Amino acid sequence: MNQLKIIKIGGKVIDDQAALDAFLTDFSKIMGSKVLVHGGGKIASGFGEKLGIKPNYFDGRRITDAQTLELVTMVYGGLINKKIVAQLQVKGVNALGLTGADANVIAAKRRPVKEIDYGYVGDVSEDLVNFDSLSMFLEAGLTPVLCPLTHDGLGSLLNTNADTIASVLSSGLSRIFDVELIYCFEQKGVLSDFENQTVIPQINPLSYEELKIKGTIKEGMIPKLDNAFDALSSGVSTVTIGHFSDVLKLANGKGSGTVITL
Amino acid sequence: MNQLKIIKIGGKVIDDQAALDAFLTDFSKIMGSKVLVHGGGKIASGFGEKLGIKPNYFDGRRITDAQTLELVTMVYGGLINKKIVAQLQVKGVNALGLTGADANVIAAKRRPVKEIDYGYVGDVSEDLVNFDSLSMFLEAGLTPVLCPLTHDGLGSLLNTNADTIASVLSSGLSRIFDVELIYCFEQKGVLSDFENQTVIPQINPLSYEELKIKGTIKEGMIPKLDNAFDALSSGVSTVTIGHFSDVLKLANGKGSGTVITL
Repeated sequence: MNQLKIIKIGGKVIDDQAALDAFLTDFSKIMGSKVLVHGGGKIASGFGEKLGIKPNYFDGRRITDAQTLELVTMVYGGLINKKIVAQLQVKGVNALGLTGADANVIAAKRRPVKEIDYGYVGDVSEDLVNFDSLSMFLEAGLTPVLCPLTHDGLGSLLNTNADTIASVLSSGLSRIFDVELIYCFEQKGVLSDFENQTVIPQINPLSYEELKIKGTIKEGMIPKLDNAFDALSSGVSTVTIGHFSDVLKLANGKGSGTVITL
Repeated sequence: MNQLKIIKIGGKVIDDQAALDAFLTDFSKIMGSKVLVHGGGKIASGFGEKLGIKPNYFDGRRITDAQTLELVTMVYGGLINKKIVAQLQVKGVNALGLTGADANVIAAKRRPVKEIDYGYVGDVSEDLVNFDSLSMFLEAGLTPVLCPLTHDGLGSLLNTNADTIASVLSSGLSRIFDVELIYCFEQKGVLSDFENQTVIPQINPLSYEELKIKGTIKEGMIPKLDNAFDALSSGVSTVTIGHFSDVLKLANGKGSGTVITL
């Protein structure tokens, strides 16, 4: 099986041009087949404010009404995705920017309305990943760059969490590739002690439960780790979580970050 | 040589959801390999106004400053392109939305500063069309959907006229395909009489010169026809200009619109 590295970036690096540029330079040095999945950063909120589109949240999740869908389609699918693609081209990476609708790479199901209508939000599963298209692109030497948008196959784009896209994509592609998934963010890894920036070198399902009970792992880190364990359960070889400035070390298995294991 | 139809849409159809939907339904019925090139419509100006970005023109051409480049990257590369792609997917067309930076399909040279600095505007030529990537996509059954953005290969996107992209793309791909180029817009063809909507069935270089001298062909129609003749000179088989609601007739050579010949 050919190796494939799937790297997810999100958070502050998206909004900081110098940090993004440094990250993309490191990313360009990762050898072999690779995929980049990027989040939305805070840029969309800034443009939304100027356009008079107010963000709505429920339980920490953004509600995507029709106006917000237009906004994120512009910012995620246009501005951020295409800037990254153009910048990777100059760094020698033949990048191809994609939403889930492009070449139908990732379809999704619009989240059913129960207590709340999340709007144009798509839930993905690995059986909706079109690995034929993606493997064709990879075999042709292209580097897919995915933004956090999928589509419902009924004509509408959908907003989908980038961590989840990275996890599902990794699971789907693990059928035909030996996949390593790397989550990059603002911390050196999953921290046991925020003040001293102590990184937990390894987390397995048992220690994960303990760390949740102790409150060491909480809030936004929980869905990230759930996504990581989902990917491992579906056949992904390795999942690592670490700082975006360490992406080369993380990709080369140089002992940085937190390794998630089953 | 395999046949390839390259269809360009622009103007009002981009801004009118019902007209766009009808056009895309017709487009989906065109048999064989095809490419769609779309313009920007007036949507960008609307968003630009809300964002406080004032459009600058010189000699009828938009000056693309850094803010305007961000705006058109969002609107052309994000909003319009991805909406079209998602809508084509539901109509059975496996569309792939592209800027020139994606898979490096069309590079451009930033227009040199002479009397005026047009900003982030790219001039394209057929030798900058990456027909390897495009033919791979077409052979895989994908339908490329291009927005009017190219890139300079130095990390920046560039704004490029959609008519010119369609012409240069047709020229570049005519090396490996039998290319038919169809320009769709709001008129039934090139008109000799606007009041009676009389369509000129055929224009060749000689009649073109006469029609320009008489003032029948003027303003925005001149660059469109120049692009058409450029494409024919570079090996494109047929160029037709007609109404977007006639795209099926135009694609099937059913005698609609104006045929441009050498």
